[in-house]
Amino acid sequence: MSDLTLVIGNKAYSSWSLRPWLLLKHLGVAFEEIAIPLHASDAVAQIARYSPSGRVPVLLDGDEVVWESLAIAEYLAERYPVWPTEAHQRTLARSAASEMHAGFAALREELPFNCRARRSGVDPSLAARAEIDRVVALWMTCRQTISGNEGPWLFGRFTGADAMFAPVALRFHTYGVFLPEGARAYVATVRQDFHVQAWIQAARTETGVILADERGEQVGEA
Amino acid sequence: MSDLTLVIGNKAYSSWSLRPWLLLKHLGVAFEEIAIPLHASDAVAQIARYSPSGRVPVLLDGDEVVWESLAIAEYLAERYPVWPTEAHQRTLARSAASEMHAGFAALREELPFNCRARRSGVDPSLAARAEIDRVVALWMTCRQTISGNEGPWLFGRFTGADAMFAPVALRFHTYGVFLPEGARAYVATVRQDFHVQAWIQAARTETGVILADERGEQVGEA
Repeated sequence: MSDLTLVIGNKAYSSWSLRPWLLLKHLGVAFEEIAIPLHASDAVAQIARYSPSGRVPVLLDGDEVVWESLAIAEYLAERYPVWPTEAHQRTLARSAASEMHAGFAALREELPFNCRARRSGVDPSLAARAEIDRVVALWMTCRQTISGNEGPWLFGRFTGADAMFAPVALRFHTYGVFLPEGARAYVATVRQDFHVQAWIQAARTETGVILADERGEQVGEA
Repeated sequence: MSDLTLVIGNKAYSSWSLRPWLLLKHLGVAFEEIAIPLHASDAVAQIARYSPSGRVPVLLDGDEVVWESLAIAEYLAERYPVWPTEAHQRTLARSAASEMHAGFAALREELPFNCRARRSGVDPSLAARAEIDRVVALWMTCRQTISGNEGPWLFGRFTGADAMFAPVALRFHTYGVFLPEGARAYVATVRQDFHVQAWIQAARTETGVILADERGEQVGEA
C-alpha cells in the first residue's frame, strides 16, 4: 500500500468522497487525489475510467480497486487502526457506520451536503427529524463508551465511525439544525478539525456551481 | 461467541434477515432465532426490545448487540472465514457487499422480496434494469477471479458476498427476470442451497400475510 490514489467528486457536494479522504488524512496515510466534477457533461465517462460501480469514491492501490466508503474503510482496517481497539467499541463503531452507510435517506434528501454553504428556512419533515434524533442518539451511545478525557471524537480518538458521520455533522451546521449540547460539541469537533477545514477551504475554491440552489448530493455518489 | 441469537423478521419478506442467517448457517455457527412479524401491530415495540436502530436483523452475543447486516458480517469475520482468504478477492467481496448494502434502490422497490411467491407481469423500469445489469456484472466479476472447479458461489466457496446477494438471486427468480447464462447458474446455486431451501420452507409455513399483493420489503428492515 505505497501508491494510493483516491478518486473523489466535488469537495463542496460529495459527502461520500469526504469520508475516506478524512479517514486517510487522520490515519496519516499519504495519497494522491483525482477530483471529478460530478455534474460535468463527461462525468459519467470520467468516473467509469476508475469506478466499476460508476460512483465515487474509489481507492486505487496499485492494481487494486476498492469502491464504497465502507469497503475502503475495511480495506484500510487490515493495515491501519481504522476501528476502536476495544471489542465492544469496535462492534458499535461498525454497526453505527453501517447504519449511516445504508440509512438516513430523508435527512440526506432534505439536507443535501454543501459544506461551503449556510442555509436557513429548511424545515425537516417528521421522517428527517426522527433520523436526526437517531443520529444524535447514536453519537451519544458511542461517546458513553469512553471516559472524560479520551478525546472529542465518537470513541475518543478519530475512527472510521467519525469518517462516516463527519459529513452529517457538517450538514447539521449548514442547515442550523438545533441539537442538544453533546451533539453540538461533536459538530464543533468536526468543524474545527484541521483536515475538515482544509476540505472546506478547497471546496470554496472549486468553481463548479451545479444548480441554482447548489443542491448536488444525489448524482454519482456512494 | 457461545450464545448467539439472531433477531429476524418474516422469512417470507425480510431479505435483510436472510443475509446474516444464511451466513451463520454456512459458517456452521449455532444460533437461536427470534422472529418478529414485521407488520404486526406491536412490531415496532417488539423490535425496539432488541434493536437500537429499530430494525432487523440484530445479532445478540451475550451482552453484545450487533445490528446492520454488514456490521454483523464484519463482527463474525473477526472469528470466522466470512470473506475470501485471497486479498484481491476479499477486497472485491467487500466492495460488492457494500454496494449491495447501500444500493440497488429501484430493484428493491420494484421487485420486493417474497421468497415464497412467483410473479409475472412486473416490468422493471430503466433504472431497475440498469441495476439488474450491474448485479449481473458484479457476479461475473467475482466469478472471474476463480478457476473452474472451485465451487459454484461467487468466489467458489460461500462467503459474505453470497450472503448479501442470495436474496437478490431469489428476487430474480420470483419475478422471472431474464438473465444471461452465468447469472442463471448462480441463481440456481442459491435456490438449490440446502439452507436457502430450509428458509423458503419456513417462509411457506408462516401465516402472516401482510398486504393483498404480499409486498413486504420496506417496513422495519436494514
